[in-house]
Amino acid sequence: MTKDNSVQVSVLGLGAMGSALAEALVKGGHATTVWNRTPGKADGLVAQGATAADTAGDAVRAGRLVIACLLDHASVHEVLDPLSGELAGRTLINLTTTSPAQSRELAAWAADAGIAYLDGGIMAVPHMIGRPGASILYSGSADVFHQYEPLLGLWGASTYFGEDAGLASLYDLALLAGMYVMFAGFLHGAAMVAPAGVTAREFASMAAPWLTAMTGEFEGFATVVDGGDYTVEGQQSLEFSSLDDILAASSDQGISTEVVDMVQRLIQRQIDAGRGKEGFARIIESIR
Amino acid sequence: MTKDNSVQVSVLGLGAMGSALAEALVKGGHATTVWNRTPGKADGLVAQGATAADTAGDAVRAGRLVIACLLDHASVHEVLDPLSGELAGRTLINLTTTSPAQSRELAAWAADAGIAYLDGGIMAVPHMIGRPGASILYSGSADVFHQYEPLLGLWGASTYFGEDAGLASLYDLALLAGMYVMFAGFLHGAAMVAPAGVTAREFASMAAPWLTAMTGEFEGFATVVDGGDYTVEGQQSLEFSSLDDILAASSDQGISTEVVDMVQRLIQRQIDAGRGKEGFARIIESIR
Repeated sequence: MTKDNSVQVSVLGLGAMGSALAEALVKGGHATTVWNRTPGKADGLVAQGATAADTAGDAVRAGRLVIACLLDHASVHEVLDPLSGELAGRTLINLTTTSPAQSRELAAWAADAGIAYLDGGIMAVPHMIGRPGASILYSGSADVFHQYEPLLGLWGASTYFGEDAGLASLYDLALLAGMYVMFAGFLHGAAMVAPAGVTAREFASMAAPWLTAMTGEFEGFATVVDGGDYTVEGQQSLEFSSLDDILAASSDQGISTEVVDMVQRLIQRQIDAGRGKEGFARIIESIR
Repeated sequence: MTKDNSVQVSVLGLGAMGSALAEALVKGGHATTVWNRTPGKADGLVAQGATAADTAGDAVRAGRLVIACLLDHASVHEVLDPLSGELAGRTLINLTTTSPAQSRELAAWAADAGIAYLDGGIMAVPHMIGRPGASILYSGSADVFHQYEPLLGLWGASTYFGEDAGLASLYDLALLAGMYVMFAGFLHGAAMVAPAGVTAREFASMAAPWLTAMTGEFEGFATVVDGGDYTVEGQQSLEFSSLDDILAASSDQGISTEVVDMVQRLIQRQIDAGRGKEGFARIIESIR
């Protein structure tokens, strides 16, 4: 990126994620100012070329683009409410994890204060930022998204969902839900095989490609869900998806069954409702 | 495969999986006899070159290798107990989903009857058999595994875990546990975004690459689990992994929170035990 395209950008919040975002901006050639509530977090970034601000106000004044990556929604208000005057006429991209309702509230707050606002949800862990696989979801101001698209591209693949500032956050949380639940499933499996002398690393080497292959089933489930007909031929039926063997083996290994019990309950409610011959995707009806 | 390498093989059980296994054998050039308890399932396979047997006994007598892919452990005994005499001197590969204890019981039963026994767990859905991504896990007789390795390769990648007949089944169930839990997580996410007008197919197109990327975290979790030190630097802490936003957004969307509640409980137990500053992988201690 040439000097001409350099953006005066400030990053508020230098946790693992904020630091990764700031580092990518510095490496991308942008004039990057960084701030964190507790000091000492900026040193590594300063060594790479960032400027450390002593206060959030100094950071905001140094950037025409302000990136917030704070602990939560309350922290965003705590840090930014006293600075709404300074932020007026500037652009705020909020990458703090918030709920859709909180994102919409912040968008309304920003609109009142004359701040251009884009909300984002980061689909990556910090070390993935700027590497293949990192994806960031945005919604809110289309103008902001398009103006800063090259800068946003330094972090990962960008997807824009529309003017409703809550939509990126909703997608973000829905994808994070899938991730945390998958992690619990992986760790349940690792706990199952451990008593047989299988290391978690050995199990991970089987589980990662297996679950990757199984994500290939999502599209088929989704087609059934969108179609609303769970009786489509060729699917594994709920009756055949009994998790009794998994539960029995988990108990035999002396571990808790609660991770798998959750799925079994979703299945059982559909069987009890007379839907046992329908496809596995029907468990979404136990959720909604 | 040349005629010389053709194996006289019989497949007992023509559900979706048994049929897929038999089809791969027929296409691989093996003299394949098929049997199912309820008739009519063999027609498509016969059209491709398989021979249909009227009884399980006829099928066993036609094969020197017998593949069982039945409903469950009880079905295996129901079908095979009366045929132990005919099976003596033959080889049985049991791909019916069973618990590790049931696999070991069948291995002992087979040893008593003079039947060479290999147990297998299929890590694939039926339409994946014979295609990239299908993986089948085996344990039990090493001789059987090595003798029939080329035939087994028609179905997918084969992994042999050792003489303990229960080990493949344990791995199988642990990986299936991960799969079912991941599916529940995906469907929870799809249920979250649906009220915002996002189709399940749109969500699947984001969720599949996202969860695939996130399987890359398994190895790091596993290293921490195997090392037993959950305080390793650079991990996201349990305190920071609060699922409150996901739960609040799920409730706002009017859907059940029970899928995510499960993970939240695992996290909370560790926080309550004073482990909130440790890494996410610590939730395995809530399971075992």
